Amino acid sequence: MGRILKPETRPPATRYRPQIAPTETGVIPETVPLPDPFPLYRGGWLGAARIAYESWGRLNAARDNAILLFTGLSPSAHAAATAADPTPGWWQPMIGPALAIDTNRYFVVCVNSLGSCFGSTGPASIDPATGERYRLDFPEIAVEDIASAGFEAVRALGIERLAVVMGSSLGGSLAVAFAALHPQGARRLVSISGSAAASPFAIALRSVQREAVMRDPDWQGGHYADDKPPRNGMTVARKLGTITYRSATEWRQRFGRAPLAGLALDSDPFGPRFAVEGYLEAQAERFIRVYDPNCYLYLSRAMDRFDLAEHGGSYQAALAASGRDGGLEQALVLGVESDFLYPIHEQAAIAETLQQVGVRTRFRRLPSIQGHDAFLVDIPRFDAEIRAFLAQP
Amino acid sequence: MGRILKPETRPPATRYRPQIAPTETGVIPETVPLPDPFPLYRGGWLGAARIAYESWGRLNAARDNAILLFTGLSPSAHAAATAADPTPGWWQPMIGPALAIDTNRYFVVCVNSLGSCFGSTGPASIDPATGERYRLDFPEIAVEDIASAGFEAVRALGIERLAVVMGSSLGGSLAVAFAALHPQGARRLVSISGSAAASPFAIALRSVQREAVMRDPDWQGGHYADDKPPRNGMTVARKLGTITYRSATEWRQRFGRAPLAGLALDSDPFGPRFAVEGYLEAQAERFIRVYDPNCYLYLSRAMDRFDLAEHGGSYQAALAASGRDGGLEQALVLGVESDFLYPIHEQAAIAETLQQVGVRTRFRRLPSIQGHDAFLVDIPRFDAEIRAFLAQP
Repeated sequence: MGRILKPETRPPATRYRPQIAPTETGVIPETVPLPDPFPLYRGGWLGAARIAYESWGRLNAARDNAILLFTGLSPSAHAAATAADPTPGWWQPMIGPALAIDTNRYFVVCVNSLGSCFGSTGPASIDPATGERYRLDFPEIAVEDIASAGFEAVRALGIERLAVVMGSSLGGSLAVAFAALHPQGARRLVSISGSAAASPFAIALRSVQREAVMRDPDWQGGHYADDKPPRNGMTVARKLGTITYRSATEWRQRFGRAPLAGLALDSDPFGPRFAVEGYLEAQAERFIRVYDPNCYLYLSRAMDRFDLAEHGGSYQAALAASGRDGGLEQALVLGVESDFLYPIHEQAAIAETLQQVGVRTRFRRLPSIQGHDAFLVDIPRFDAEIRAFLAQP
Repeated sequence: MGRILKPETRPPATRYRPQIAPTETGVIPETVPLPDPFPLYRGGWLGAARIAYESWGRLNAARDNAILLFTGLSPSAHAAATAADPTPGWWQPMIGPALAIDTNRYFVVCVNSLGSCFGSTGPASIDPATGERYRLDFPEIAVEDIASAGFEAVRALGIERLAVVMGSSLGGSLAVAFAALHPQGARRLVSISGSAAASPFAIALRSVQREAVMRDPDWQGGHYADDKPPRNGMTVARKLGTITYRSATEWRQRFGRAPLAGLALDSDPFGPRFAVEGYLEAQAERFIRVYDPNCYLYLSRAMDRFDLAEHGGSYQAALAASGRDGGLEQALVLGVESDFLYPIHEQAAIAETLQQVGVRTRFRRLPSIQGHDAFLVDIPRFDAEIRAFLAQP
């Protein structure tokens, strides 16, 4: 794998252990150190911060075959199975030998976002200065910081310039922020169901999710006990999130008005009655078992505040340097027609901007019915687009 | 006003006093008794139940000029100003002399839904059997019951057959349920932004709202104190509701990414930051001050369970009797293209069914950007359609 740096001293498991588990599957991931101090976009800095990552394939001798993959809000770096963690990852069908993201050709690195809780430094990490979790003493994290932390993580792995920076959902915004902040950082960009600036509709939805968490008395102003997180608020927040990740059309076809199996109503007159409610419950349970509530608040706020136009006054100004001198050569921008959280005009705006600054850009409106999460579900459509783009010489 | 029945004995203010206030404006409305016992669609019955109403215009001698107006989930019967309550009503620009709903011609009755808390009998009312609020001992209320309670309320006012049954949102569904249950009850129907059956998407959104209330420890299994209702849960629920009542397009134009005026962030790092969040807060505050949480749960569940096809196996079977023999002569069905809670194909299905059973039906897809709530906001468009329909001889 070339001169890939390993973390000199693997932190003790307790030190970087997030709220419940290092990844959804409980395996402690590899980490790399960020520059110390690591300055933050909205002020302040982090000391001794680390980024967790997983990787697939091999870095070639020229070190020019690396793909950096950014995730959405909730996943860990476990995008696909590894030797250390053979459980299926969140984008398992897409990453592997001869798959759309072909690990015979590419060295793929997925990072856990700075501020998240799956091995990267975040509000649930231990503050070296106090020996306690940071909680709300953690400085504000911006989308720009997560993007730059990804940049520094691949540099720590010996990669100066990526073949491709890529991401979906929040990751789709992170890939764009990466291009704005590090114009020579990648030759190609793939931005999926992302946004260049949070819309008031998405802000409204996320702010209600945060509020559900913070109004839960168990949140305790961020000082919840490890064994008593704000489960009620997190459940409501995640169910609402789940609603925004799919589409009414899909649910009409998938659930209709089917009753929930195994329904026992007598004991709970307002309890779940329809199959769709059972789905929401299962999704929420899975999430709140592993996700740290303060990390959730930090990343959710970062998404609301992101506006690419802060970098120079317009989207075009923000990406001008990437286009100039061919820093960024090519881009693929994918959006989904049924996505109402990050509606397709937001991806169109990203694509149009890239085109305007001189990046050869392919924009595709995918007719998937699965809404924002289609990239996780409607694999054939995404596979075809990404495979064709990455297969270019 | 012809032989309008007045309630023989106005209940003492405390008796039917809902959680906070009799209407949003604090005025005790007129009520009429329902038949005692009043049987309920999903089993059980209510004794000594009453329906609150307000009215405008005069019933003519033939008693054939009455409009019954059903409301959405949250409003009271105060659709427009009256002598008793001169504050503007929720549909003030639409109801009055020479307005779209012309009170020079029509006698307009708006009822507070059975199960609500603005004067009609509901979970917040006092159970005559115990002297305590019903709370969760209140029997399950269905959309069918609210429709039939409206039917009985106008009968108690001396009206056997309506000129028009009309409603918006839940009220749009109620008007359709009314036609199914009382085929000779009205000559015309106006159904606005309603649905003939709750979709899984709407069910998901409403179930999360109910859950936010029920997971608030202050809900106390329905036994909250009058001065300590589940404010946190109701706030989250109403904010989510408010999001579903409008559209992303409207909010992009109206709020964009404008900051909240008077922002004081230092004290609340995760507090509201954007103008759209201030709007949600104002909407929620206004609602939770007056709305009883248990009533909210009851009506919300009723909306989820409504399926017109329960009446005979299909929408067509449900409305066949209305079409037969010209019980229902004409219908106007209005939907809004930007409504994602009750999407326009649901109104199209209502219109198509009415047409199929022989009701002369006009269906209009309105291009308003205000989503589900457009009927409250985009007055010129709704005014034109309703005025033209009601102006017919």
